[in-house]
Amino acid sequence: MTHQSCPLCDALGGVLVFQAKKFRVIRAAEAGFPAFYRVVWTEHVAEFSDLSDADQLLCMRVVVSVEKTLRQLLQPTKINIAALGNMVPHLHWHIIARFDWDSHFPAPVWAPALRKVTPEELLAVQQRLLPLADELAHRLSLLL
Amino acid sequence: MTHQSCPLCDALGGVLVFQAKKFRVIRAAEAGFPAFYRVVWTEHVAEFSDLSDADQLLCMRVVVSVEKTLRQLLQPTKINIAALGNMVPHLHWHIIARFDWDSHFPAPVWAPALRKVTPEELLAVQQRLLPLADELAHRLSLLL
Repeated sequence: MTHQSCPLCDALGGVLVFQAKKFRVIRAAEAGFPAFYRVVWTEHVAEFSDLSDADQLLCMRVVVSVEKTLRQLLQPTKINIAALGNMVPHLHWHIIARFDWDSHFPAPVWAPALRKVTPEELLAVQQRLLPLADELAHRLSLLL
Repeated sequence: MTHQSCPLCDALGGVLVFQAKKFRVIRAAEAGFPAFYRVVWTEHVAEFSDLSDADQLLCMRVVVSVEKTLRQLLQPTKINIAALGNMVPHLHWHIIARFDWDSHFPAPVWAPALRKVTPEELLAVQQRLLPLADELAHRLSLLL
């Protein structure tokens, strides 16, 4: 099922990291958060509990694989995971590596910013995103 | 493992709905969001991926049970689920019934408020929370 007016049915929504039949993983362009990934479910469903038990399990295996890869390769201060979808009610999980120097920490990324981030801090993470994408795609391929 | 300075090791963190050995479900007192629940993992771990595969599965079964119960008994506009923990790095899932009339919708609850909520709208949800708690406790007991 797809919805014509849904931005996650119409477009990838970010830089594609991995595409499977039932889901894709993208890196989102969210200013100030260099390691902001999304697991987008392919079928247009609004809520996580709309998935079958088997699909819930697969979906969380993907989320956890992204989380573990971010932890191991970037050593963030914290991982934030969330499925909100108020604006785009098409199931997608945010998996965000948070750093104690980021613009909002320890507030959620949706709260007002607390500080400016220096380009050097962003660059240090950005330089590790290409090998991270390779490693993530490899690990996700093993889940299928 | 518990941490002496952790508020979720020291206290329930809200109105207890259900207590199991490995987790509890509480209703949080978050002004303007009458149906804001948390699944708090008993063991003091920071990240969802710190759990074993079996515990991840149990934890998400609990989250989904809360989500389904909120959907069926309150018919919210959307469910929001999130594990953030930047301030309190002890694994807890937020499960929030969102309504198109709530103070922040469609923004996340952590963003600035968009409007005031009338007491009548809050009251209409609050009046359904006691039977909801009973139903939720019943359903969670069946998971164990």
